[in-house]
Amino acid sequence: MPIFKAESLRRLSEKIFIAYGSPAEEARLVSEFLVKANLCGHDSHGVIRVIQYVKAIEDGILKPGVNIDIVRETRTSALLKGNWGFGQVVAKRAMELAIEKAKKNSVSIVCAFDLYHIGRLADYTMLAAENNMIGIAMVNSTPVVAPYGGKERLISTAPVSYAFPTGKEKMFVLDIATSVCAEGKVRVSLHKGESLPEGCIIDKEGNPCTNPADLYKGGAILPLGGDHVGYKGFGLGLVVEVMAGILSKAKCAYEADKRGNGVFFEVINIEDFISIDEFKDSIDALIRRIKSSKLRPGFKEILLPGEPELRTEMRRRKEGIYIPERTWKEIMKIARKKSIDVTMLINESEKPSR
Amino acid sequence: MPIFKAESLRRLSEKIFIAYGSPAEEARLVSEFLVKANLCGHDSHGVIRVIQYVKAIEDGILKPGVNIDIVRETRTSALLKGNWGFGQVVAKRAMELAIEKAKKNSVSIVCAFDLYHIGRLADYTMLAAENNMIGIAMVNSTPVVAPYGGKERLISTAPVSYAFPTGKEKMFVLDIATSVCAEGKVRVSLHKGESLPEGCIIDKEGNPCTNPADLYKGGAILPLGGDHVGYKGFGLGLVVEVMAGILSKAKCAYEADKRGNGVFFEVINIEDFISIDEFKDSIDALIRRIKSSKLRPGFKEILLPGEPELRTEMRRRKEGIYIPERTWKEIMKIARKKSIDVTMLINESEKPSR
Repeated sequence: MPIFKAESLRRLSEKIFIAYGSPAEEARLVSEFLVKANLCGHDSHGVIRVIQYVKAIEDGILKPGVNIDIVRETRTSALLKGNWGFGQVVAKRAMELAIEKAKKNSVSIVCAFDLYHIGRLADYTMLAAENNMIGIAMVNSTPVVAPYGGKERLISTAPVSYAFPTGKEKMFVLDIATSVCAEGKVRVSLHKGESLPEGCIIDKEGNPCTNPADLYKGGAILPLGGDHVGYKGFGLGLVVEVMAGILSKAKCAYEADKRGNGVFFEVINIEDFISIDEFKDSIDALIRRIKSSKLRPGFKEILLPGEPELRTEMRRRKEGIYIPERTWKEIMKIARKKSIDVTMLINESEKPSR
Repeated sequence: MPIFKAESLRRLSEKIFIAYGSPAEEARLVSEFLVKANLCGHDSHGVIRVIQYVKAIEDGILKPGVNIDIVRETRTSALLKGNWGFGQVVAKRAMELAIEKAKKNSVSIVCAFDLYHIGRLADYTMLAAENNMIGIAMVNSTPVVAPYGGKERLISTAPVSYAFPTGKEKMFVLDIATSVCAEGKVRVSLHKGESLPEGCIIDKEGNPCTNPADLYKGGAILPLGGDHVGYKGFGLGLVVEVMAGILSKAKCAYEADKRGNGVFFEVINIEDFISIDEFKDSIDALIRRIKSSKLRPGFKEILLPGEPELRTEMRRRKEGIYIPERTWKEIMKIARKKSIDVTMLINESEKPSR
């Protein structure tokens, strides 16, 4: 069973991206973010993406080692052109710039276009929270969600993320799609041969269904709120399309030539409103009160945004990361093609048994 | 049947607030916003609130004619202390200040605390959109929503609003609670003797129920996403509590001495990212494409955020605003108490038939 240490996967991924033309720093950053997604339990955003990224490099869609251009800039804002480099590199630069600007000017917004997939939004908003600031992210992508009442795929899953610094409590990090579920979850159900819960997707005729395969036969994911109040998730999804697709110059999901991610990042300097100590004490108190809520029948505890990921990370750092056989084989194929010696990177104990 | 012209209701409301100590301008502003809510179809935020506001003035909770203090300010941010004045007055001032700051500095945030009820969020975000900017609002209040998995009321309905300028299309204005429904909708069902759709509320034991009366017997509203993905609405609700309750110094919903609204307003100057013409062309194209989506069975058209309100407003401006008998009687009682001559304000034709 192929179970690996995070560090081994990171080194392997790094070698692969270097072999495909990435400078060392870029290869390291992208690999760290991919393995972090595996650690948090979001395997759909983990090293499985090495396969997709390598193909995108071969197809000339993703360009390793390019420079980022700042096409517009004010004291509190910037618009970055990623020149189709790795999304992780462009997004990290965008968030660092936003943090720098908010530190001096209370609040800042940095948008980015022409970049590839950025991975999980929480990785960037958490950078702001680690700097005692509030981090906000909205990202759009290719279309897979239907408008409320419609049956065509016209909106992306349009995720949003908010991260807040805390005092003694664990960091508060929300990272959610504004659709009922992310596309990755439908794909996981498909691979496991499981049905989806009702209210997640519609088939190509616009009828509710639970077979994940229907999504890939012309169906669509429903906006958050489903049949009853789906106009809410639909509205939020459109907000993300405008902020991350139009304001960022990255195009909306419905546009024929839409590729990659559109990025809207915002950072707020808490100290310009209240003292950071007061903020941390207040958010700690909020978290404690919420977690102490009396429970509904059928629930064992209240989990705060970011808590499930943190727990999975603690476990996987100890127990290792399981990579499905098929994914591992494809990654090995790529490594062999570039003559990367995998035995040098993976310990004897973690080698997959064949 | 008591059906009135918007202008008549506005003048009556204005006279009442002046009689209760409001300066003319304040009375006019508050009354305009209340009647605007009736026009848009949100009667729970309309002139019915005159009764509540007058009681709050009598109880010394709401203070007409007070000054607003700016307790902290930078080029791009401000924190306002409302001194328990009318929420509408404080919130309008907050949004105007945010617009002014964003015009010069790309983006701005203005928060406010110690103020009464501000009414509909869309009224403020639309001010930014009318100025060719993006308006964002988050507001918290007293607790009525349970955390995901919990049965206690610990979060407010935590509404958010986003308004974007458009070119030829109607303005895009989202204004939604992050709970499945707003408290006003439950109250309307209660008064009409109707059941709620499943998945809106739980009773005091935490069990799902459809009788609106259960909310007022210790039940709670569920966060957006319901039993399946309610952690999403729960997360968004908590974000609003932090932004509008903690950052704004207005306290969180769960706190024992929480009163009034906490306000977080943000304005983004589009021109510092892309030209306003390009923005308007792009959002118009997005709206047109979304509205032209093929429909699901059972749906007649795709409605964009803000469209239902606009249609109701067009109709009610022509046909008048219906005020329930009981509400009208209570308002008349207040008018008589202050010797306001209603016949001078209401035309013969709109007088309620008795």
